[in-house]
Amino acid sequence: MANHPHLDTADADAELFDLLRIPSVSADSTRRGDMRRAADFLRAKLDSLGFTARVDDTAGHPVVYAERLKAPGKPTVLIYGHYDVQPEAPEAEWLTPPFEPTVRDGRVYARGSTDDKGQAYAHVRGAQLLLEGAGELPVNVKFLIEGEEEVGSRNLEPYLRAHADELKCDVIVISDGSRFAKDVPTVTYGLRGLAYVEVHVQGASRDLHSGSYGGAAPNPINALATIISKLKDEEGRITIPGFYDGVHELTEQERGMWRGLPHDDAEFAASIGVDALPGEAGYSTLERLWGRPTLDVNGIWGGYQGEGSKTVIAAKAGAKISMRLVPGQDPHRVAELAKDYIESLAPEGTKVEVIDLHGGQPVAMDLDSPFIAAADRALERVYGRRAAFARTGGSIPIVAAFRTILGAPVLLVDMGLNEDAPHSPNESFALDDYHNGILTSAYLLEELAK
Amino acid sequence: MANHPHLDTADADAELFDLLRIPSVSADSTRRGDMRRAADFLRAKLDSLGFTARVDDTAGHPVVYAERLKAPGKPTVLIYGHYDVQPEAPEAEWLTPPFEPTVRDGRVYARGSTDDKGQAYAHVRGAQLLLEGAGELPVNVKFLIEGEEEVGSRNLEPYLRAHADELKCDVIVISDGSRFAKDVPTVTYGLRGLAYVEVHVQGASRDLHSGSYGGAAPNPINALATIISKLKDEEGRITIPGFYDGVHELTEQERGMWRGLPHDDAEFAASIGVDALPGEAGYSTLERLWGRPTLDVNGIWGGYQGEGSKTVIAAKAGAKISMRLVPGQDPHRVAELAKDYIESLAPEGTKVEVIDLHGGQPVAMDLDSPFIAAADRALERVYGRRAAFARTGGSIPIVAAFRTILGAPVLLVDMGLNEDAPHSPNESFALDDYHNGILTSAYLLEELAK
Repeated sequence: MANHPHLDTADADAELFDLLRIPSVSADSTRRGDMRRAADFLRAKLDSLGFTARVDDTAGHPVVYAERLKAPGKPTVLIYGHYDVQPEAPEAEWLTPPFEPTVRDGRVYARGSTDDKGQAYAHVRGAQLLLEGAGELPVNVKFLIEGEEEVGSRNLEPYLRAHADELKCDVIVISDGSRFAKDVPTVTYGLRGLAYVEVHVQGASRDLHSGSYGGAAPNPINALATIISKLKDEEGRITIPGFYDGVHELTEQERGMWRGLPHDDAEFAASIGVDALPGEAGYSTLERLWGRPTLDVNGIWGGYQGEGSKTVIAAKAGAKISMRLVPGQDPHRVAELAKDYIESLAPEGTKVEVIDLHGGQPVAMDLDSPFIAAADRALERVYGRRAAFARTGGSIPIVAAFRTILGAPVLLVDMGLNEDAPHSPNESFALDDYHNGILTSAYLLEELAK
Repeated sequence: MANHPHLDTADADAELFDLLRIPSVSADSTRRGDMRRAADFLRAKLDSLGFTARVDDTAGHPVVYAERLKAPGKPTVLIYGHYDVQPEAPEAEWLTPPFEPTVRDGRVYARGSTDDKGQAYAHVRGAQLLLEGAGELPVNVKFLIEGEEEVGSRNLEPYLRAHADELKCDVIVISDGSRFAKDVPTVTYGLRGLAYVEVHVQGASRDLHSGSYGGAAPNPINALATIISKLKDEEGRITIPGFYDGVHELTEQERGMWRGLPHDDAEFAASIGVDALPGEAGYSTLERLWGRPTLDVNGIWGGYQGEGSKTVIAAKAGAKISMRLVPGQDPHRVAELAKDYIESLAPEGTKVEVIDLHGGQPVAMDLDSPFIAAADRALERVYGRRAAFARTGGSIPIVAAFRTILGAPVLLVDMGLNEDAPHSPNESFALDDYHNGILTSAYLLEELAK
């Protein structure tokens, strides 16, 4: 694999390693200079490829923007990536220095190697490949490479709004995650959304002695437990009235496709140290993780949490509850439904208040979309096999922002693997995956031109 | 009230405040030195009154023991109290520092002011009053003031056994609770017992991302809520199998007596800021508080409790659960029943462990006892009215041990009020009640001599 007349892997590796040597840790305020160096590195490279490239300041770290619009009548593709990396701590656990890329067994070990410098740079080298071959790109290409993904992309949404006209495009391509498995090229076509609420239960106006008052005073912790227990039925279905309204049911096509993926429940359970994977009845694990909404309490508190015993009936208790959403659900509507239902469950003598903390829209791309078909063809050319079409249970908040602000669909073509250990010590990227990523990027642009 | 030729209230107050300044929190292992200081303070005071006084070490916090046996042929009265106090948390809710006694509107605010330093010290000053008047005590008096009441008095029982001969007495007097109402001097003839357990729920072996795992990973917080919700039925009855076995039902005499007490549900509810008093169906509020067993969650924790949102599925969650018991129930048996039932409720994929933290036997005294009559007369001398005969919902676990090991009846003459807010922030003690408590103690010793 990864054979192409114009692919100079030694040069592609050497350049990536130079980028990996820059310790562009966005969370570390002492490294602002390194952040700027990484941005300049990318700008200079894209400039050398004939892109109109610049570094734009933001309230935080700068954004690299570059465009080459020489394919009139052809689609415009926006490629997003990020040049910032996670902090390297705990540094003692690295076998080789985090900012000195080192190759062992065909993998380059360095902070940012897979997340996301390696994957973003594969797109840069993909464009180079096409330019060195055909001399021009088959589509119009825009690069947007930010420096704050690892700290919440807090300045990206304002940037998108301010540059919405300039960033206009037909499709957005992102490579910032993991393929389903080593031998499974993957297109991710859906992300769950999120509704996140906080529940406050008030009982008496002060903490009470459980001896003197136990039997007559409302207990907000018992009340909260009762409320939470009523949010799902015995079958694991969420009982909030209206919660499932509009939910796009999984199609037989999707269920069949996912059944074909190499997933093993026992292995998955063992990987998190449990002996069962409870969830909504009637759905497989992957279906529940990717295609069904869920509800989890993320935190709970009330009364005495210290050592030993304290005989208190607390005045208040609280919990944080999140719901993962699927296409057809709206975070704010779901939060409203949850608020109405949870508040209606207030047991006698208690007051319950629900606060909408934040939400994120679910995203799914139409499986019949020509962009997905193009990605499928590109991956088949690289790997010699058809891609898997997966969704993911998590949310990537900026994906929803791209859709909302730029109005274009997002294509997630991940090049990494979970075993790359992004965010952990000894993060790595298989050079094979990097080289295949370069080809994937080039072929994807070619296929998108068709 | 509280007039007596030898009662120097200013001096009695100042001495109590010195004791309240010592943060003798028995649950806090960093305060062992303060525990010792409080014990020494009491020993020195009793020594100065001519008692033979000492501080005895135990496996936990020390016991103060003092005796003055100068009334041959007269009864021997053992006065019990405790110098340890509840933790001050949540400290932010105190209007003035918990260990800096502050007088507002005739009340001293401080942790331990009513529970039990104030009430125990009233007895010390009661003895002083008699010694300064008649020059001698009318009965033989023994003081036993321990330092582990708030953590289950776990070393008192061995202490009683080891010193059973020395502690021999005709009656035991304890003031560690609340009178029925401001104008109702009260003799308490029954106490509920206590079984206190801690529940640990384990899900995955590590915290998980709720996006990547929500829908398949067991959630220990949801599991814990479900378990708690199953501990009572819709009628407020506890569902632990065998829980009610052997419970002594209330007699018609008791129910009638209590109906005659000045109790108003609406006022009671208003006093704790609630609009309902939920509890077991078929019983009045006083019956539920004094004569029926209950179950309350005293603390709960798990996952993210900070500001904002964190999308985590916690690896574990926990709760502290106490059950108040009535005569006929045994704490260790109830804890065993609770353990078996709670562990049997473990939802799929979770492991549940229940730990028996501590327990206390329920107690009821014979209503026809001559000691009760003496207390009745003493209270009439102080308050100008007959005492009410009540039970109390709280537990003094060692009362049962006193009965069993020393073989003497226990007389509960409470000086506090519920509005003192023991165990809560801003615990206080009316100075009036403290001064009346000093007189009550002195008159009670006189009446017991008759």
